[in-house]
Amino acid sequence: MIRVGVNGYGTIGKRVADAVAAQPDMELVGVTKTSPNYGAEGAVRRGYDLYAAIDDRVDEFEAAGLGVAGTLADLLDAVDVVVDCCPSGVGERNRPTYEAHDVPAIYQGGEDADIADASFNARGSYEAARGAGSLRVVSCNTTGLSRLLAPLDETYGVEKARVTLVRRGGDPSETDRGPINDVVPDPTTVPSHHGPDVNEILPDVDVDTAALRAPVTAMHTHSVNVTLDEEPSTEAVRDLLGGESRVFLIPEGAGIDGAGALKDYAADVGRPRGDLWENCVWEESISVEGRDLYLFQNVHQEADVVPENVDAIRALATDASRAESVARTDESLGVGL
Amino acid sequence: MIRVGVNGYGTIGKRVADAVAAQPDMELVGVTKTSPNYGAEGAVRRGYDLYAAIDDRVDEFEAAGLGVAGTLADLLDAVDVVVDCCPSGVGERNRPTYEAHDVPAIYQGGEDADIADASFNARGSYEAARGAGSLRVVSCNTTGLSRLLAPLDETYGVEKARVTLVRRGGDPSETDRGPINDVVPDPTTVPSHHGPDVNEILPDVDVDTAALRAPVTAMHTHSVNVTLDEEPSTEAVRDLLGGESRVFLIPEGAGIDGAGALKDYAADVGRPRGDLWENCVWEESISVEGRDLYLFQNVHQEADVVPENVDAIRALATDASRAESVARTDESLGVGL
Amino acid sequence: MIRVGVNGYGTIGKRVADAVAAQPDMELVGVTKTSPNYGAEGAVRRGYDLYAAIDDRVDEFEAAGLGVAGTLADLLDAVDVVVDCCPSGVGERNRPTYEAHDVPAIYQGGEDADIADASFNARGSYEAARGAGSLRVVSCNTTGLSRLLAPLDETYGVEKARVTLVRRGGDPSETDRGPINDVVPDPTTVPSHHGPDVNEILPDVDVDTAALRAPVTAMHTHSVNVTLDEEPSTEAVRDLLGGESRVFLIPEGAGIDGAGALKDYAADVGRPRGDLWENCVWEESISVEGRDLYLFQNVHQEADVVPENVDAIRALATDASRAESVARTDESLGVGL
Amino acid sequence: MIRVGVNGYGTIGKRVADAVAAQPDMELVGVTKTSPNYGAEGAVRRGYDLYAAIDDRVDEFEAAGLGVAGTLADLLDAVDVVVDCCPSGVGERNRPTYEAHDVPAIYQGGEDADIADASFNARGSYEAARGAGSLRVVSCNTTGLSRLLAPLDETYGVEKARVTLVRRGGDPSETDRGPINDVVPDPTTVPSHHGPDVNEILPDVDVDTAALRAPVTAMHTHSVNVTLDEEPSTEAVRDLLGGESRVFLIPEGAGIDGAGALKDYAADVGRPRGDLWENCVWEESISVEGRDLYLFQNVHQEADVVPENVDAIRALATDASRAESVARTDESLGVGL
Ligand SMILES: NC(=O)c1ccc[n+]([C@@H]2O[C@H](COP(=O)([O-])OP(=O)(O)OC[C@H]3O[C@@H](n4cnc5c(N)ncnc54)[C@H](O)[C@@H]3O)[C@@H](O)[C@H]2O)c1
Ligand SMILES: NC(=O)c1ccc[n+]([C@@H]2O[C@H](COP(=O)([O-])OP(=O)(O)OC[C@H]3O[C@@H](n4cnc5c(N)ncnc54)[C@H](O)[C@@H]3O)[C@@H](O)[C@H]2O)c1
Ligand SMILES: NC(=O)c1ccc[n+]([C@@H]2O[C@H](COP(=O)([O-])OP(=O)(O)OC[C@H]3O[C@@H](n4cnc5c(N)ncnc54)[C@H](O)[C@@H]3O)[C@@H](O)[C@H]2O)c1
Ligand SMILES: NC(=O)c1ccc[n+]([C@@H]2O[C@H](COP(=O)([O-])OP(=O)(O)OC[C@H]3O[C@@H](n4cnc5c(N)ncnc54)[C@H](O)[C@@H]3O)[C@@H](O)[C@H]2O)c1
Repeated sequence: MIRVGVNGYGTIGKRVADAVAAQPDMELVGVTKTSPNYGAEGAVRRGYDLYAAIDDRVDEFEAAGLGVAGTLADLLDAVDVVVDCCPSGVGERNRPTYEAHDVPAIYQGGEDADIADASFNARGSYEAARGAGSLRVVSCNTTGLSRLLAPLDETYGVEKARVTLVRRGGDPSETDRGPINDVVPDPTTVPSHHGPDVNEILPDVDVDTAALRAPVTAMHTHSVNVTLDEEPSTEAVRDLLGGESRVFLIPEGAGIDGAGALKDYAADVGRPRGDLWENCVWEESISVEGRDLYLFQNVHQEADVVPENVDAIRALATDASRAESVARTDESLGVGL
Repeated sequence: MIRVGVNGYGTIGKRVADAVAAQPDMELVGVTKTSPNYGAEGAVRRGYDLYAAIDDRVDEFEAAGLGVAGTLADLLDAVDVVVDCCPSGVGERNRPTYEAHDVPAIYQGGEDADIADASFNARGSYEAARGAGSLRVVSCNTTGLSRLLAPLDETYGVEKARVTLVRRGGDPSETDRGPINDVVPDPTTVPSHHGPDVNEILPDVDVDTAALRAPVTAMHTHSVNVTLDEEPSTEAVRDLLGGESRVFLIPEGAGIDGAGALKDYAADVGRPRGDLWENCVWEESISVEGRDLYLFQNVHQEADVVPENVDAIRALATDASRAESVARTDESLGVGL
Repeated sequence: MIRVGVNGYGTIGKRVADAVAAQPDMELVGVTKTSPNYGAEGAVRRGYDLYAAIDDRVDEFEAAGLGVAGTLADLLDAVDVVVDCCPSGVGERNRPTYEAHDVPAIYQGGEDADIADASFNARGSYEAARGAGSLRVVSCNTTGLSRLLAPLDETYGVEKARVTLVRRGGDPSETDRGPINDVVPDPTTVPSHHGPDVNEILPDVDVDTAALRAPVTAMHTHSVNVTLDEEPSTEAVRDLLGGESRVFLIPEGAGIDGAGALKDYAADVGRPRGDLWENCVWEESISVEGRDLYLFQNVHQEADVVPENVDAIRALATDASRAESVARTDESLGVGL
Repeated sequence: MIRVGVNGYGTIGKRVADAVAAQPDMELVGVTKTSPNYGAEGAVRRGYDLYAAIDDRVDEFEAAGLGVAGTLADLLDAVDVVVDCCPSGVGERNRPTYEAHDVPAIYQGGEDADIADASFNARGSYEAARGAGSLRVVSCNTTGLSRLLAPLDETYGVEKARVTLVRRGGDPSETDRGPINDVVPDPTTVPSHHGPDVNEILPDVDVDTAALRAPVTAMHTHSVNVTLDEEPSTEAVRDLLGGESRVFLIPEGAGIDGAGALKDYAADVGRPRGDLWENCVWEESISVEGRDLYLFQNVHQEADVVPENVDAIRALATDASRAESVARTDESLGVGL
């Protein structure tokens, strides 16, 4: 059993905790919270042990009727791996603590690439991550792009990918995030930093990205163009992507017309939190013109990195091969629609 | 066992079906669909028998690989009660069919009040609905208001209630609903029809409503003022509402600041589809100034009527008392946060 | 000629500058900017003299090709009145500077009431502001409420007013303001601070307010209930409000159904920036039930305080009566639709 | 003087009418309305003669206090050119009427290309439109693309253009348009019909488009990639586009970060209705990587086709060259920021 702690129990942390708890070969030792808010109460209801992220706040938790099992230091002493799910930049501040406790750490995509020994995406760089002492699971957008470009590059060769990322402005619970009634170039400069981040996973793929921010909370939307080295048929590409375990082809004629319906479908089939762990590629949009492939995909920013974190734990702490880890993660969670 | 059929498997229908399937004294015989879209596939995945709502579309379902157990007529022949969850106005068109099959029917709030023998809300009119041959579960907004005003009227007497309803523009999956970047008076005339609809449940409560439509999909928000006959303390009102099984007091200091966080909390505690069956009253907002009570409440339009439909089935088909039915519904679903 | 300077040339400042420039008895000496952004360029295009709000940034303006006429100190030396239109709280920091230069100042509603000798609204407190050495024009929402409640109180007596304010989340150019897809109680406590702010203008009117924030940028929407001392007819109230110079009754049947159409109409009739200086009361919504008046009004947050600032200048610097000032302001701007 | 009538006085029609009225060589004979709504009143306030679009509604206008100068037939008898600005598809129904009156007609982009003898964009196809008996001004998106691709193709040659169109969901006054909180592939198939529409103007340019619909009302956003035949410097492309009269380069460092600020700037410089007739290209986004050009541009859907309609009138009714017409249109309106 790999003993795992989650430091930072927010949007990503709570999902990683649930996913770890669902693994037969892992034990969720506990999660940290900085204050006894509704998330902390939710953790307790799920039966997770709470640890105070900040030492002198233990009393605050007790006052709120939420007992804590210890502090972050206690949690670190009890785990084989810590998954840092703190806000961007806080992971960097936490790093010395993890190192002092000699606990291998997994960071999230909001941190700079050099925070860890390697950047991680199960489809794109599992084997390359072997032997690392720490890993950084790339961001939701980079995860979505890596899963798409890896099989295309392997099968047909990618001459150049050009992607417009229409990013969600904030997560559903972030009431202070905008924009309202605006689609904002962010960054205004093109190409954006997302392409180079993909190269942390797939160093040889030529990819340019342009990023916008839109007044939506549910999902990112990617408008993808890939000039391939070969000229496959549209059908062949559809089959290739349909065969990927973490790609869901939104079927034509199913009546799914946007992120709202997609999440409705996820709830229909019983997904916890309505989560979509897979890239959601619009089947009808896949189109090859000469060597130019076009498609739209939606990425559930809160969820797609979750199975990746599980695999990153195995890559860091076990000898499991990519195929073994991915199969185990997917089966225990129910990835694949 | 009460044998139940659900005609119209959309936003409300799929939730009613799940809730019926969860009752120990009910059997979900099946649900109807007009076409084999993603909702139909979701129903099949849940193990529900599909019936074709439109006779000559059986082939379409077969072609999509979704076997049907029969047509609406077959479903009606096999049930004790049908719950009509079709779009507004379609229930009226379905009524003669239900009557021809001699099946007691429950309609939704999008239908006119005179479609059924009585309008229904478990808290406000369970006993009054006794003996009816058909019932209409009032709309999400009316349900939310009835649950609030019933205990206030019983305990303190309501001199007059004045409520502004800031309604969601559409459900999450309705991409064709607006407004974008506008808060629209709808109807422009004040008072709106919601007050009279409350009077279908609580005939003696004086209530004026004013309704707006906003560019949000998650929940309705009600800004409530009630002039009471007495002058209770703020604390007393808080206790009264906190004691209602279908009212959730959003706790101060929990870090919940909007509908997004509310639904995040619902998912945290494991609610299917992130559903909030309860009125969500902002505890901090409850305030009594003289005889004037103020508060905000949020209502999850997709969910609050669901336990009401379950109780309506028992009111129509059994001798169970209100207390018995509500307790059974709440326990089987897990109502109460 | 009253020589006027505007310190802070943003949403409000640029409109106040235009309005001052349009007055026959005023001279706009200049406006300040903290940096040479598009607003500064716009000011220059309009022929307004630019002053550097921050002394050591003069070079930055020169580098951008925008000559400045001096610094804030220079501007203050050249004016009879300064209108502070800086962000909330910055006015308080500027106060000692204005006092050191012995220049009477007008502040905006984002400042605390005690920043100035008196709070100001032409309809509600022009005469009370006489003799003050500084004034604070109350916020957009308070201005809208004062204009409505003043005539109602004078004519019928207000027993109690209860208002729900559905506020815009941000101005159109504020891309960092949320919420997205949420209506947020803000503040969660009821009554909100807006009622007491009205009492700075109308001390004797009993008014409770509840405030929400919505994902829109164009206007605020107020859902108003006023219990009057008398029982006027709906028609009488309509006539009363229709007779107010800064109230526009949105006519029934004109096809105006929201803030978007309202602003379209403002542009149709040639309003600069599509500004609506008037309270926009939905004629069809006006309704008297017993002594209870209901109505919806929309308030253009960027514009309604503009004529008030002009009148505040006259109240501070001249002997003009309210009637004289308001008539002059309204005529020069074209207030009244 | 060219006598011009505008049939359909909505979003586009009212702007075309204003633009025609501003031309020294044109006379706006009148505009039609189907009903006496706020737009009709706005037209009268501007001094435009009203004609009843539907014969038997003349009385309705009179009843609303808005006198009409006649019916559509009367208008057609009095003009040299009619500009049809009716909703998509209505132009097709109007065509026989125009032909019966033997009046050359200009249609809008909502109509099919074959409604007229030629499709029109001043930059792309002025000379090709010569001698046509009727013209169709292409849609707002196609206009924006044509203005961009024409100079690029002339100067460097376009090997292939790939554009993602993030379209506004509706115009500001359209309260019934969605989506709310969703970015919708529309159409889901890629490439979309916008590319072929560009080919109505620039037949030899290879362009693939992918279209989304977002919950915004102010502008469209285009994410553009163009593979050129040559390898110009970023600076050269910037200069080329900066030299186009109907392209505005949004300057770096001006503090403009979205459509809201863009429209604020338009209002600052005095644009009627805050209209942006130009393509708004984000200067900072222009970037050439090898032969791949990237940039973002915003298009004001309500405004960019307006100067094009003016030029279309001259192309249809005069011998003016493109250069003469464009110069005259731009000068009279003030195109160019
Ligand atoms: N939300 C997304 O869409 C998304 C997607 C992929 C990756 N990420 C990345 O995941 C990371 C976490 O993002 P998130 O969206 O979950 O953020 P979040 O704000 O939802 O959650 C962060 C949690 O960490 C807690 N926290 C803050 N400081 C802490 C500390 N010092 N110690 C322990 N806990 C602390 C916060 O209270 C909060 O509960 C970031 O790097 C982010 O870039 C986010
Ligand atoms: N969505 C809400 O917020 C909400 C809340 C409370 C009450 N209601 C009421 O519930 C009812 C259903 O609303 P909804 O939101 O679930 O609508 P919906 O559109 O989500 O679902 C209606 C379903 O009925 C199906 N249908 C249409 N015609 C049919 C027919 N002839 N036979 C069988 N099925 C048919 C549709 O395919 C769809 O699946 C309405 O009366 C509505 O006013 C809705
Ligand atoms: N925007 C509204 O809806 C609205 C409505 C009514 C009242 N108000 C009040 O008006 C005031 C101004 O608000 P706004 O919306 O115009 O803000 P804004 O941010 O649009 O404009 C403020 C301007 O002041 C400038 N500024 C900042 N610091 C400065 C300094 N030290 N010296 C000089 N200039 C400085 C900024 O650069 C900006 O141009 C606030 O008190 C606000 O509460 C705003
Ligand atoms: N709005 C845009 O963003 C935009 C941009 C470019 C092109 N277009 C095209 O311009 C055309 C007009 O679009 P719009 O947005 O101005 O529409 P709109 O709905 O704003 O205006 C259309 C006007 O025509 C009137 N009308 C309807 N039927 C009529 C009839 N039979 N006779 C006379 N008038 C009639 C309507 O009352 C309305 O005033 C469409 O082809 C559209 O595709 C629109």
